[in-house]
Amino acid sequence: MTSIGIIGSEGRMGVALAAAIAEAGHKHCGVDKGGNVLNLASDADVLVDFSSPDALEATLDACVAARTPIVIGTTGLEERHHYLIDDAAKDIAVLQTGNTSLGVTLLAHLVREAATRLDADWDIEILEMHHGKKVDAPSGTALLLGQAAAAGRGISLDTSSERGRDGMTGARGRGNIGFASLRGGTVAGDHDVIFAGAEEMITLSHRAENRMIFARGAVRAALWLIHQKPDRYTMPQVLGLS
Amino acid sequence: MTSIGIIGSEGRMGVALAAAIAEAGHKHCGVDKGGNVLNLASDADVLVDFSSPDALEATLDACVAARTPIVIGTTGLEERHHYLIDDAAKDIAVLQTGNTSLGVTLLAHLVREAATRLDADWDIEILEMHHGKKVDAPSGTALLLGQAAAAGRGISLDTSSERGRDGMTGARGRGNIGFASLRGGTVAGDHDVIFAGAEEMITLSHRAENRMIFARGAVRAALWLIHQKPDRYTMPQVLGLS
Amino acid sequence: MTSIGIIGSEGRMGVALAAAIAEAGHKHCGVDKGGNVLNLASDADVLVDFSSPDALEATLDACVAARTPIVIGTTGLEERHHYLIDDAAKDIAVLQTGNTSLGVTLLAHLVREAATRLDADWDIEILEMHHGKKVDAPSGTALLLGQAAAAGRGISLDTSSERGRDGMTGARGRGNIGFASLRGGTVAGDHDVIFAGAEEMITLSHRAENRMIFARGAVRAALWLIHQKPDRYTMPQVLGLS
Amino acid sequence: MTSIGIIGSEGRMGVALAAAIAEAGHKHCGVDKGGNVLNLASDADVLVDFSSPDALEATLDACVAARTPIVIGTTGLEERHHYLIDDAAKDIAVLQTGNTSLGVTLLAHLVREAATRLDADWDIEILEMHHGKKVDAPSGTALLLGQAAAAGRGISLDTSSERGRDGMTGARGRGNIGFASLRGGTVAGDHDVIFAGAEEMITLSHRAENRMIFARGAVRAALWLIHQKPDRYTMPQVLGLS
Repeated sequence: MTSIGIIGSEGRMGVALAAAIAEAGHKHCGVDKGGNVLNLASDADVLVDFSSPDALEATLDACVAARTPIVIGTTGLEERHHYLIDDAAKDIAVLQTGNTSLGVTLLAHLVREAATRLDADWDIEILEMHHGKKVDAPSGTALLLGQAAAAGRGISLDTSSERGRDGMTGARGRGNIGFASLRGGTVAGDHDVIFAGAEEMITLSHRAENRMIFARGAVRAALWLIHQKPDRYTMPQVLGLS
Repeated sequence: MTSIGIIGSEGRMGVALAAAIAEAGHKHCGVDKGGNVLNLASDADVLVDFSSPDALEATLDACVAARTPIVIGTTGLEERHHYLIDDAAKDIAVLQTGNTSLGVTLLAHLVREAATRLDADWDIEILEMHHGKKVDAPSGTALLLGQAAAAGRGISLDTSSERGRDGMTGARGRGNIGFASLRGGTVAGDHDVIFAGAEEMITLSHRAENRMIFARGAVRAALWLIHQKPDRYTMPQVLGLS
Repeated sequence: MTSIGIIGSEGRMGVALAAAIAEAGHKHCGVDKGGNVLNLASDADVLVDFSSPDALEATLDACVAARTPIVIGTTGLEERHHYLIDDAAKDIAVLQTGNTSLGVTLLAHLVREAATRLDADWDIEILEMHHGKKVDAPSGTALLLGQAAAAGRGISLDTSSERGRDGMTGARGRGNIGFASLRGGTVAGDHDVIFAGAEEMITLSHRAENRMIFARGAVRAALWLIHQKPDRYTMPQVLGLS
Repeated sequence: MTSIGIIGSEGRMGVALAAAIAEAGHKHCGVDKGGNVLNLASDADVLVDFSSPDALEATLDACVAARTPIVIGTTGLEERHHYLIDDAAKDIAVLQTGNTSLGVTLLAHLVREAATRLDADWDIEILEMHHGKKVDAPSGTALLLGQAAAAGRGISLDTSSERGRDGMTGARGRGNIGFASLRGGTVAGDHDVIFAGAEEMITLSHRAENRMIFARGAVRAALWLIHQKPDRYTMPQVLGLS
């Protein structure tokens, strides 16, 4: 029986994580805002963090001090957060991902494969829909899928994205990857990756019915991460896809 | 046999219009850039214009001079174009629309009905996809559908739109109507109007396989318009929907 | 505070109903297999039944004896069950429906409106997807939507359905309404009504994220039904749609 | 410049093939019903056949006699036709496929990959929609995609299919592959392969805007086939996917 520590245990993902850990037959502990993360990192075999970027530095410090691996599913990370993660990964096993679901991880793998096979005559567009409370766009998962498409095509997403189309945009740039975001209702997360060619179209989609799939995937990743040596890991590695 | 004059007869819509007019058993004439619009307006029983906003003023002047009704399907119109149309409609029958297809016209009717019935707990989102050569976003048809939703809900689209979401957008505004645009391939025009509520979602969609449906609808509107007295008309009137 | 009695209180819909009744600020009581329905009908202000057709006759007898109105959401009803309902409706208010959700009820209204406006050149197809444990096809909701389409078009569903296409089916019959069923995963209920015309297509869809929407709609119907005189009612009446 | 012979040159696919051959800068010849296939096979560098199964035996005999390779896109083939093809493939290069489009060929590749990675907890469903004149169901392409899924999962489609669901079907069989068919309008061909898991769903889709994509793919296959030695080939080989 493994002990999995939850950062942000009283948030919605925290509650889902506790349920997923119980479902998998393991035990959980957790802290919420203001809790003692160092104690948690010492007590637990592995941490899972879906809280906010602000707390990430302190959390990573605690993990390194306690030599405890960590799964990071927090969204809205900036470049400096990635440097912090890279640093921590010299001492502990860290898995950071924009999406912990098995289905999305496989979808990203298929997107990369399709983008490898199809030339730039096929326009790539990424559409996502989430509930109305989401504050950023596009979703972390949409960007993760965009990275997979860009990797398959051998281009950089930074210089090839079309985002937030509105007004006189001009024609679509050849080879670009477009993003669009819908918000509404209680949608847990829908993603479509569209390859639009001459008179035909391939669409690769994922639909999450609720957030339990993210909690389950995070637990699976945490259990896998315990057995890895210090380094930075990704979800496809958990599933043996790369 | 009716004589239908085409403004922009050599463009892609012009060619489709000629085919649709022949299909309907009528005859067509036309002018392209630099052609004599006044002669065309005098010769034809009705004009159809899918060309550009630049030429609209001269075209309307010719129609008024010749007392010839006109169907305007040109996109990208600005406020001043609408004033010109209102003026011309004092003397001749004018039908201006963002979309001439029968299916879209019915869809707008259904969207208005749904928006009338559902309160602001249901978030309205409008998604459109068109080929990669389209230069403006959202499409005229998406805006037309947004107007139908706003009318049903009794709000103004001007103050309630969310367009081009990108970056830290904050949570969705209650009661707002969102728009998102995809571009790629050779898509003739897909539109989805989504009503996203608590744990359920209604989507009303239209998909055009090619531009012939717009040409056919324009011809139907033109044949109807010949019999109307001077005024400004809309597609729902052609179909008896309002 | 209204007392709502649940037939089949320990089933999945029974549990959802109890939650929805609590959410709405009312109280619930219930019986499961072998329980005393007459006592329940006497104690409650209104009953809600999502159990099985087998028990329907005894349940209706108990409601008539106790003069208690009833909402029937049970699927798989046969002609004889409808006769029993008609009989009971002489003495008590009965609302029977294939789907209690607000969204589906509105969708059926829109389907009927679209089918009224579009001629038989537009082929109507109804697609549904549900979880893999569902034992009948098409779903009750798909048939309800088919009835709405048939009513709008002025035809009988009995003589105009195409179901279970497989093998050498021959060409589609003009004016027919087709049905197709997908089964898999944990899908709570997706329905698409497609109007496929010449080179364009209108699709009216509903997607349920989970069964709470059916429980909430049933509670809303039950609260409305208490105030009605003996007769047979439908969901659109609850929403003022007809 | 290659000479490509069309069997069924006056049918709709024949006309599309002629256009696609011209587009690719090659020349075409052809026969229709009652034409001399042996002469055609002697004159052309390669044949393309989208006609009917009835004529297949004579066509293959002509190809073998003339040592001319052939691309067979005819649907509705039975077991005996496949034996005839196997026989002919001892003497000439033969490519037989249920779908000649590049997009569908890639989709089948992705379906196989996904089915390899996902266990039988994920239900596989295949949905297709075609115009109302199609006489068989499911489409050849749906079966081709089903074969790809079955191959990925290591099962036989013959013993694991659920087709034409209607009435009391019972619960879905674990590990089965379901098929459903929609018919209507002028749809050139839509296909969805759905992997429905616990609270998440992956969908891999293809949409054809018109039949030109099949003609173009067939021409590409024909040009490739000329350079192959006698054997039976498939579309993935044309694209280097297997």
